[in-house]
Amino acid sequence: MYLGKVLSISALLMMSLSALALNALPTKVPVPADNLQTPAKIELGKILYFDPRLSQDGTISCNSCHNIMADGADGRPVGVGVQGQRGGRGSPTVWNSAFNTVQFWDGRAASLEEQAKGPLTNPVEMGMKDHDMVIGRIKLIPGYVTLFQKAFGKKAEINIDNTAKAIASFERTLITPNSPFDKYKRGNKKAMTASAVKGMKLVEEIGCTSCHVGDNFNGEGFKMGEGNYQPFPQIPGSKYDKQYEITKDLGRFDVTKDPEDKNKWRVPTWRNVALTAPYFHNGKVRTLDEAVRVMAKAQLDVDLKEDQVTDIVAFLNALTGEFPKIAMPRLPMTPGTTHTPDP
Amino acid sequence: MYLGKVLSISALLMMSLSALALNALPTKVPVPADNLQTPAKIELGKILYFDPRLSQDGTISCNSCHNIMADGADGRPVGVGVQGQRGGRGSPTVWNSAFNTVQFWDGRAASLEEQAKGPLTNPVEMGMKDHDMVIGRIKLIPGYVTLFQKAFGKKAEINIDNTAKAIASFERTLITPNSPFDKYKRGNKKAMTASAVKGMKLVEEIGCTSCHVGDNFNGEGFKMGEGNYQPFPQIPGSKYDKQYEITKDLGRFDVTKDPEDKNKWRVPTWRNVALTAPYFHNGKVRTLDEAVRVMAKAQLDVDLKEDQVTDIVAFLNALTGEFPKIAMPRLPMTPGTTHTPDP
Repeated sequence: MYLGKVLSISALLMMSLSALALNALPTKVPVPADNLQTPAKIELGKILYFDPRLSQDGTISCNSCHNIMADGADGRPVGVGVQGQRGGRGSPTVWNSAFNTVQFWDGRAASLEEQAKGPLTNPVEMGMKDHDMVIGRIKLIPGYVTLFQKAFGKKAEINIDNTAKAIASFERTLITPNSPFDKYKRGNKKAMTASAVKGMKLVEEIGCTSCHVGDNFNGEGFKMGEGNYQPFPQIPGSKYDKQYEITKDLGRFDVTKDPEDKNKWRVPTWRNVALTAPYFHNGKVRTLDEAVRVMAKAQLDVDLKEDQVTDIVAFLNALTGEFPKIAMPRLPMTPGTTHTPDP
Repeated sequence: MYLGKVLSISALLMMSLSALALNALPTKVPVPADNLQTPAKIELGKILYFDPRLSQDGTISCNSCHNIMADGADGRPVGVGVQGQRGGRGSPTVWNSAFNTVQFWDGRAASLEEQAKGPLTNPVEMGMKDHDMVIGRIKLIPGYVTLFQKAFGKKAEINIDNTAKAIASFERTLITPNSPFDKYKRGNKKAMTASAVKGMKLVEEIGCTSCHVGDNFNGEGFKMGEGNYQPFPQIPGSKYDKQYEITKDLGRFDVTKDPEDKNKWRVPTWRNVALTAPYFHNGKVRTLDEAVRVMAKAQLDVDLKEDQVTDIVAFLNALTGEFPKIAMPRLPMTPGTTHTPDP
């Protein structure tokens, strides 16, 4: 009952704010003062992002689970790391992650820089023993010395902070503007289909946009502040809890150990969500239709009619942006030898 | 003794032919009459080459083991496929593979088209049950229908032959001209270092170029004909046989079952060999220096002095070509769903 009330107030507030709530994607990303964007840093970051030698056995790069040629994730329920090991959660998309104020499903990294350091030493992801091992590997590759100097100056240190800064700088270029919604929002009323427009109104009416608002449709930086964490399910007890094992993973609680944070998650972006199946933290829901049904029920106690699902899915498809053309990097090699051990 | 004689005759023949023997890389690749190069086919092939959905669990693309951003191979002793499984042999480079008349270490594919079909259904590589499963997966992705039509005409069938043709067409664009050696060969005598020039003369004198001749330094299409197979070791009994388990894998014998083919292998290219460590069919030799020592001893019964090793390695480094700039492909997605199962 309490939750119901909060939701109603939130939904009312939302409707009055709706003109502001859904924003076209900004053309500029937030950039931290101590890691300004430069072409050399972005180029280094791109090369590091695609380099599988940053993993224990040379099989996994950042791009393995956050595939820039596709949806910025991997189309799999959970990530797959070195030695075929499965991670515990789905890979969030790297596209537009520059607009998140916190990273990872549970928000345990406060920046892209901090996030970039994590998977390198996660035993089921890139599997490096520690960051010294990462840096040791990079230092064996002469081309990286030059690239770090270009990015960070002649006396640049090759260290984990600079490595993460370069990767984060590259990631800040990965934005997808000009979705049909963005064009619509900027005045082209033909940019979205009638069904998508209906879907847009519907998500505001039923309250989805209580959380999915702002530039990146994740509520961050708009009204929820940094790290917009919400319980999932908001309303426990639907059939979906069990069907999709929604509550098994305690989410943000694992970070804070605060009982209030059990089953709370960073609200994920809606941008390009049509491309990032399967859905939710455990990737248990394979289609966007079903994800919409689950969210309406588990978060808002709404049983959607099928034509409503269709309209909402049409709107979510209108949030697929334009992906920039990117030149393939060349990884610097060490002539005459290799640096990845036998798996 | 017999082998010794054959080698001597071969070496003598070689010296008289040496002016012809080492060729600059042609700017045109051989193209089969039934698979002419077109931009649409090359583009489709590039997309397929990078698409991990062509593997059972969506983790492995052609590029996983034949990394175009690097050496066209994977820097690992042996390939790593789905579920972290290790293959039996090292991944040969895709760069300049268009100049090979046969493919795979044992030459079991007569064309790039035939080669492209193999890893898809190899259980320790991409792990698809059969080619129908591959084609079924591709057909689920609407963007591929359009891409196949652009490449093969409005009535194009999405089938394994067209899939392989497209991938092969893309691979035929992967050539690396303008190595220091190529420039030297075309008249720029400053393009190679003095040490590399000494190395070039040495490989002709001691007989390496009995096999490593022609456009791609693999003897094919020059004097050995199609599929230049040679025993490794040529002269059994050196310490290296055991140290690097050279004879464990029977090579071409596994294809032909002809006892004469035991431990025979397609002669691999020298182009970009400085980048494709570790070496040989089993990837047991980690450095180019050691690979040179092993080959001189095991194939020619020559104990090289260290300055000779240095010169030969300098020459081999002069065979690193220029890698073309390539735009990253965008993989067509299926909005609202995914096609890769839980691993």
